[in-house]
Amino acid sequence: MCELLGMTANVPTDICFSFNGLMQRGGRTGPHKDGFGITFYEGKGCRNFKDPNPSFNSAIAELICHYPIKSCTVVSHIRQANRGRICLENTHPFIRTLWGRAWSFAHNGQLSKYKQAIKPKYHVPVGNTDSELAFCWILDQLFERFGRSKPRNMKAVFKYAAKLSDQLRAFGIYNMLLTDGEFLLSYCTSNLFWITRKAPFGKANLIDADVSIDFTQETTPNDIVTVIATKPLTDNEHWHKMDTGQHKLFKFGVLV
Amino acid sequence: MCELLGMTANVPTDICFSFNGLMQRGGRTGPHKDGFGITFYEGKGCRNFKDPNPSFNSAIAELICHYPIKSCTVVSHIRQANRGRICLENTHPFIRTLWGRAWSFAHNGQLSKYKQAIKPKYHVPVGNTDSELAFCWILDQLFERFGRSKPRNMKAVFKYAAKLSDQLRAFGIYNMLLTDGEFLLSYCTSNLFWITRKAPFGKANLIDADVSIDFTQETTPNDIVTVIATKPLTDNEHWHKMDTGQHKLFKFGVLV
Repeated sequence: MCELLGMTANVPTDICFSFNGLMQRGGRTGPHKDGFGITFYEGKGCRNFKDPNPSFNSAIAELICHYPIKSCTVVSHIRQANRGRICLENTHPFIRTLWGRAWSFAHNGQLSKYKQAIKPKYHVPVGNTDSELAFCWILDQLFERFGRSKPRNMKAVFKYAAKLSDQLRAFGIYNMLLTDGEFLLSYCTSNLFWITRKAPFGKANLIDADVSIDFTQETTPNDIVTVIATKPLTDNEHWHKMDTGQHKLFKFGVLV
Repeated sequence: MCELLGMTANVPTDICFSFNGLMQRGGRTGPHKDGFGITFYEGKGCRNFKDPNPSFNSAIAELICHYPIKSCTVVSHIRQANRGRICLENTHPFIRTLWGRAWSFAHNGQLSKYKQAIKPKYHVPVGNTDSELAFCWILDQLFERFGRSKPRNMKAVFKYAAKLSDQLRAFGIYNMLLTDGEFLLSYCTSNLFWITRKAPFGKANLIDADVSIDFTQETTPNDIVTVIATKPLTDNEHWHKMDTGQHKLFKFGVLV
């Protein structure tokens, strides 16, 4: 299917180490060679890099791996296509604007028999994946529930998005990451793991590449960085496995 | 202020040559060092590269210059900030989705005394530039005029966007590029030039870098490629200067 990677931190942090692990799975250590994408938030703005080519030998993935973009919220996805052909408009993360914020969404899994139930009215998909359709439907429901102006209580908005995810899970496998740049919602059907790194920091070894990092050299004692992935990226740390139907909501590195 | 670059072609074409000229103006041969952005359309999808750093020495600009992405429609912008601070959310081109298409917008100029008149309801800006506000307002007007479903006659939609641009021009300098990936609308207040290259192709020399190209080596006899820029990029070709209040609408390289 696909793989997901998310990061949420209380200080702008680069994702070079984790992305180096993920990108290998896009054609080298894994079969997810049908494109990749990554969204970095910096303040209210975000930038997104996408390539319909395999990440393991993409010049764009190579740049991301070695060009440290400091961000508090990152969502990334490597694709093994099932619904929707291999092309740019079907490449995750999908981005839409709602309430003056850029929202990003990435999905791992496959939905079935959803076409009668999942019919967004306001947010029309560009491509033809089940994933983008689900994202558009979520935004529609948020818009209908909370109205045209940005709600004050964004935590309640994300808790509602988790409830909507329960409905989407009824149609198949639905592991996903959703963010507005501040909150990061993770929802699990089958595969989703998370880890929070904070002081005292240690060392970590990537599973997919012969690369290690000593986080004590890269951080300050106040840093809190949470990483979420469909499969653990390191082999010497404890990753929390999420249960079916479980969601975890983070804001700037911290579980809320 | 800023500079604009657009390309529209009947076959997927890379913009490495023209972008190489433009990016020099972002801090080396020109003062537009407050970030840059570029949107490439490939089919219905698009990808966008942005950097709030100067383009002339940006690793991302360097990649774009040497990594030939083939596209039929491209919009790019290098920024010299006036309204809105230097940050990612104020970096052009701005992208929004309407009618299941990704729309991109880039603006050169500065508007004044517009806040009472330009108040978008549906499309809320993320940043605080006059440019993004104008873009959101245009999308609002298109939505109100043509409704929720994608109109069949997209040429009429762009002609209406040109009329809306007449209204925006009343507030100041407004040179702009607007595209849905198929049509590319250019609107001139003060500085906008265009050139269509087709057989028989010749050679061209960049003004801003010691780089020449022989288009006969890069093209087939059927290729039609139009480039639009706030200032000509080459010194040995004839660029058409647009007049104040004039617009030109292109579709896949051809004036329509």
